[in-house]
Amino acid sequence: MLEARHGAVVDQAPDALTAKLARFILSTRFEDLPANVRHEGARTLLNWAGCAIGGACHATVANAFAALKPFFGPPQATLFGRSGRADILHAALINGISSHVLDFDDTHIETAIHPAAPVAPAILAWAEHRSVSGRDLLTALVVGIETEFRIGIAATPAHYKLGWHITGTTGVFGSAAAAGRLIGLDEQQMCWALGLAAAQPVGLQEMFGSMTKSFHPGRAAQNGLTAALLAHSGYTASERALEAKSGWLKVMSPACDPAAITDSGWEILNNSYKPFACGLVVHPVIDGCIRLREANHLAPEMIEQVEVAVHPRVMDVTAIREPKTGLAGKFSVYHAAAIALIEGAAGEQQFSDEAVGRTAVAQLRARVTAAIDPTLGKAQARVSIRLRDGRKLDMFVEHAVGSVGNPMSDRALEEKFRGLAQEILSPEQSARLIDLCWDVERLTDAGEIARAAASR
Amino acid sequence: MLEARHGAVVDQAPDALTAKLARFILSTRFEDLPANVRHEGARTLLNWAGCAIGGACHATVANAFAALKPFFGPPQATLFGRSGRADILHAALINGISSHVLDFDDTHIETAIHPAAPVAPAILAWAEHRSVSGRDLLTALVVGIETEFRIGIAATPAHYKLGWHITGTTGVFGSAAAAGRLIGLDEQQMCWALGLAAAQPVGLQEMFGSMTKSFHPGRAAQNGLTAALLAHSGYTASERALEAKSGWLKVMSPACDPAAITDSGWEILNNSYKPFACGLVVHPVIDGCIRLREANHLAPEMIEQVEVAVHPRVMDVTAIREPKTGLAGKFSVYHAAAIALIEGAAGEQQFSDEAVGRTAVAQLRARVTAAIDPTLGKAQARVSIRLRDGRKLDMFVEHAVGSVGNPMSDRALEEKFRGLAQEILSPEQSARLIDLCWDVERLTDAGEIARAAASR
Repeated sequence: MLEARHGAVVDQAPDALTAKLARFILSTRFEDLPANVRHEGARTLLNWAGCAIGGACHATVANAFAALKPFFGPPQATLFGRSGRADILHAALINGISSHVLDFDDTHIETAIHPAAPVAPAILAWAEHRSVSGRDLLTALVVGIETEFRIGIAATPAHYKLGWHITGTTGVFGSAAAAGRLIGLDEQQMCWALGLAAAQPVGLQEMFGSMTKSFHPGRAAQNGLTAALLAHSGYTASERALEAKSGWLKVMSPACDPAAITDSGWEILNNSYKPFACGLVVHPVIDGCIRLREANHLAPEMIEQVEVAVHPRVMDVTAIREPKTGLAGKFSVYHAAAIALIEGAAGEQQFSDEAVGRTAVAQLRARVTAAIDPTLGKAQARVSIRLRDGRKLDMFVEHAVGSVGNPMSDRALEEKFRGLAQEILSPEQSARLIDLCWDVERLTDAGEIARAAASR
Repeated sequence: MLEARHGAVVDQAPDALTAKLARFILSTRFEDLPANVRHEGARTLLNWAGCAIGGACHATVANAFAALKPFFGPPQATLFGRSGRADILHAALINGISSHVLDFDDTHIETAIHPAAPVAPAILAWAEHRSVSGRDLLTALVVGIETEFRIGIAATPAHYKLGWHITGTTGVFGSAAAAGRLIGLDEQQMCWALGLAAAQPVGLQEMFGSMTKSFHPGRAAQNGLTAALLAHSGYTASERALEAKSGWLKVMSPACDPAAITDSGWEILNNSYKPFACGLVVHPVIDGCIRLREANHLAPEMIEQVEVAVHPRVMDVTAIREPKTGLAGKFSVYHAAAIALIEGAAGEQQFSDEAVGRTAVAQLRARVTAAIDPTLGKAQARVSIRLRDGRKLDMFVEHAVGSVGNPMSDRALEEKFRGLAQEILSPEQSARLIDLCWDVERLTDAGEIARAAASR
């Protein structure tokens, strides 16, 4: 059936999917965004900024910076969480890498797209280069993200199954759309920008586990911005990049549902944020441990034994019994439970080499056992703790915090931001940047957000 | 069978195709190149330089330059045929666009790859940034081109049929390979560079007929150079980018023959050069007209009637009876025959708006007729001319000049270069650049070639 639908695209030339998408991208006004959509835009902006700052010291970012610095143009845009600046194209790349490297950015569960990382860096760089209002920035961000989701949903699941890293491949379109709006493309130019985006996809799943994974959204941000700049100068492309016989949909996905591209509705409302700096699968366990700790004022020396029951997938990917590094700690349900009980948190600090190696952590980790319970859902877990005083505590997590059924609160997003930024920004700088993100729609100059994200 | 072979790739993990290719790229020495391979390298370098200079004033290049100039880094590298300079990454992009925009660059018939355009710009830019000997440049050029051909042949024909513009998609690898050699990558870093290349393919056939077609090799040159620079700074990628389960071969091509990637042999010997600035299909007619003109000292006023017999494909794509623009002239077998008889050439000048509009050309064009002969091959044509003095002249073209069976001579390549460069370089500059290309393997500093290509 999907194949048949796909056949339909190819014959659907007069329907001009690309042109319709361009019209949506350009015609959407700030006033068209419902209040909850605007708020979700501000939430993902705040979450993205924290990730970009928190990732800025990672070796991945340092390597990219060192490799490309000799070729930087004028210092037009802030590198988040760093003291240097770069031309807007390199800033889009580096900030895109930085915001994805911790794997802590937003996630759209249906498509597996991390939507902000390819879009936000492009438009924030542009907002420093040319004056952009907060309303325009927010509208561009939302429209760019919706563009990614529409194309991603159209190509799901066949495109992902083929091996593409969908964050990069749809991200180029999101960046071109959002940047193109701000640059002031007309409808034909927007079609060209989408064409230039279609011609330069980024991202293979084969790169997962290497630095190139986070290169994908960074390069997507840079490619989309380049596409918009070229289109604005009259650089032509096919105006049927999506629907044509040898267009993006046919080439990139063995099957697809083109109707998704013209769907109305605000898919950004299904965006989600990770409270914890590790794979989503282990989040229910962490959530249960933190809740038990808070409800019972637990300290590690009170705890005799911890038993967790988890969805089968958890033991496929997070079964490392004695992790030796912070990165390995992200793949250890034992470490996740222990550190959550000890610190009541599971941010980057809790998955550092130091945290993983600490004696007290190792001791509690050794008292954690894990068992598969196939009746549990992916966002569920059961945590049972036997205390040294004989008491037994139990917690069933039905919707882990951060899942669409139990989203992180605005306060929790602020806390996450502060945790990510704490080694890089002063508390005052963090507070200011948090305020700027919440107030985005009232800013005269959205470039303030980027400038406030420089380390000093 | 191809499917079965393809299945084999996926299970062939220990065979490490990517690593084997990296080893070939790095271990090939100048001394390993046979004399005819070196000479073919110099020929494609000369042909490429002429195309890059000749394309430099095209609106496509002007638009790309205008769009991106505000973001250029230091003036590290020459923009061929222009007076400005750019950082090496932008120079690779712009020179790549410039060298393909006239559709006059080299062609590998089996794969349809235009091999020089993604490779030469990357390594010439690097040769201006860091000192590179002519031997090293030539070896890198040949190895980069062989890398494109190996991957291209492995994926032919399924990859092209799917809709990819193979010049861009394989070009990223060619550029990464050639630049990576010069930058000094070790074997692991070369695997990373190939991984970074695999993650950022460029080029959809849907863009043919727009400026984005020539963006493909330009961006491929830039992407490959970026990949090599990142890998050199320790930016990691999968080391199995080609053969892995979700690697390039599986994702980019429904079927493939991975054995081609480890084939030895010098495929560059099957590279070909276009003598005429239009689609290959009409080349046999032009060749026949020029040969009859030269053999009989023809002048237009001597000619009563011209009849050409052609392969059926010619009338599919070049049947425009009265072209109004230079571009339309490229799709008119009538104009091609007439201008070839009048000027004894068919370069860019012969396909200008002016040439197409000239009265004498239009008059002879009206006396040309064309008929399909299905017994003719694609590189064949028959030209019959009735002269006003009653004589009848006939010419059967068996292998059109420029086809692999009848390659352009070195002198003809020089003549082509001079025609392309004549509006941009002085005759002395052209002569010097031609000499530098032929002498490439004796140059201490290969950057001289690029510097000699600046307009003044």
